[in-house]
Amino acid sequence: MARTTVSHEDGVVYEFAPDLDGVYEATPGERLTIETRDSLEGAVRTEDDVVESVPEEVNAATGPIAVEGAEPGDVLRVAIEEVRVAEDRGRVVTIDGFGLLHDREEIETPRTRITPVEDGAVTFDGVEVPVEPVIGTIGVAPAAESYSTLIPHDHGGNLDTTAITGGNVAYFPVFQAGAMLAMGDCKAAMADGEMCGTGAETATEIDVTVDVVAAPATSIDRPVVETPDEWTVLASAETMEEACETANLDAMELLAAEHGFDPTDAHLFSSLVGGLEISQVVDPLVTVRNAIPKEYLDDPFDR
Amino acid sequence: MARTTVSHEDGVVYEFAPDLDGVYEATPGERLTIETRDSLEGAVRTEDDVVESVPEEVNAATGPIAVEGAEPGDVLRVAIEEVRVAEDRGRVVTIDGFGLLHDREEIETPRTRITPVEDGAVTFDGVEVPVEPVIGTIGVAPAAESYSTLIPHDHGGNLDTTAITGGNVAYFPVFQAGAMLAMGDCKAAMADGEMCGTGAETATEIDVTVDVVAAPATSIDRPVVETPDEWTVLASAETMEEACETANLDAMELLAAEHGFDPTDAHLFSSLVGGLEISQVVDPLVTVRNAIPKEYLDDPFDR
Repeated sequence: MARTTVSHEDGVVYEFAPDLDGVYEATPGERLTIETRDSLEGAVRTEDDVVESVPEEVNAATGPIAVEGAEPGDVLRVAIEEVRVAEDRGRVVTIDGFGLLHDREEIETPRTRITPVEDGAVTFDGVEVPVEPVIGTIGVAPAAESYSTLIPHDHGGNLDTTAITGGNVAYFPVFQAGAMLAMGDCKAAMADGEMCGTGAETATEIDVTVDVVAAPATSIDRPVVETPDEWTVLASAETMEEACETANLDAMELLAAEHGFDPTDAHLFSSLVGGLEISQVVDPLVTVRNAIPKEYLDDPFDR
Repeated sequence: MARTTVSHEDGVVYEFAPDLDGVYEATPGERLTIETRDSLEGAVRTEDDVVESVPEEVNAATGPIAVEGAEPGDVLRVAIEEVRVAEDRGRVVTIDGFGLLHDREEIETPRTRITPVEDGAVTFDGVEVPVEPVIGTIGVAPAAESYSTLIPHDHGGNLDTTAITGGNVAYFPVFQAGAMLAMGDCKAAMADGEMCGTGAETATEIDVTVDVVAAPATSIDRPVVETPDEWTVLASAETMEEACETANLDAMELLAAEHGFDPTDAHLFSSLVGGLEISQVVDPLVTVRNAIPKEYLDDPFDR
């Protein structure tokens, strides 16, 4: 089956809201190519283009894509086959009042560095870094509240998680009929933490296969990412400590279901294998993940 | 040269203090085997032995070992060749008021699980986990204040960092003549985060080579770990956010020296490569690390 392309020209959202209208309806198992804009909408082409403040509309997310038959309580499965950088550059910027070190005097804001992309590498001031794309913002229509695409929450959103990339599978709770998947805000390269508030922001083409896990064996409240070796739960919260707690509780629930542990044994076991990782520390809510190696956890959705 | 053994029977400390007396004086380049007790001092042998509260003296650190010629301003280099589990079990425990989820009702405290160690694996309730030892507490005499072995700080201490293991090299700032290295609190296995407050606590034998980098090209204020692929800076603070800031600033300093970046460019570049990782979220101060791949950073001590 040929891939259908859904482009940012078909539609973008700047808010994950409960009542989104789809720009396309996919069938379960359909293969799509999703074209995304860079998070700054092409406004930054040279190092003279600086970003004075966080734009009111940022992280345009292509979509939303309705997936036929997805109903609240299901799980949306998004197999990410490949993320391709679709332009000849990225841009990494400081912005006033934004980023981990925004209150440090020695950090100049605003500043833009253009990172040319060529032959599988981005270049920062002469230093080559391999292209390892990240989908920064990806999510579904939330249950009740609306969230701007600058915010990560239980529906996904601005998760800025290096594990959300080609070769991995992202799972989202379905809160609304059709799920309403949207994504954008991609980076050609990004460090865990995304310290300055951006990676090498770039436009991309993303090959995915969307599917619905109806009546999953395990229900989830937040996004989960499957890598070749791990099941990773994602939690966003106001503080890192809160995010760590939620990411531990979510992992414990999966481990308890798998091994018949009570919560205390799941907590003890979770302290021995895999563990907590940082996604980003710069968005209005921070994001932490907890990775459980697959040898300790089978597919939680299919038991 | 044969290895000298320094055992916990030769001496342990429960406090990293500025005025420690060495139990042994090593020559630079000397190969040592250091024998450590488990963090709970053998008090927990069966699952009926529970830990009601954090002991007043915990994490006995074998030593201190004076290293001849180490002077304030130098860097102590501890090449960790191998960490061997020296008993047939570990123990993972919950303790009242301790651990990431200590205020959650569903977590029973105190509870002990014995994790038998056999053939390179620890077993938790029938589930086998490979032995991947961690040196939980390792450090040197601090500059001015004293720190109990429950606390991580700039001198090292209770860092609970999975990267501090065989095959890697730990570097510490030297604050006092002789440096005064001590270590203990090892785990047969531990997750990044050490969520319940312990890993599989166990006695070990640790093969190290100690050395002094006199007048290092780069001075450090906190521990640094070298893995085969990365240079990793470690920062401990009251909140994860503060620890992330310090770990980013320290990495930026190394990147700036290497590439001639100003602080802002170092910050931007740090947002593209490697990144922030979690060591532990359960000690009185939490510990975060920032890993920079070696392709972007040569040996900072030897330029």
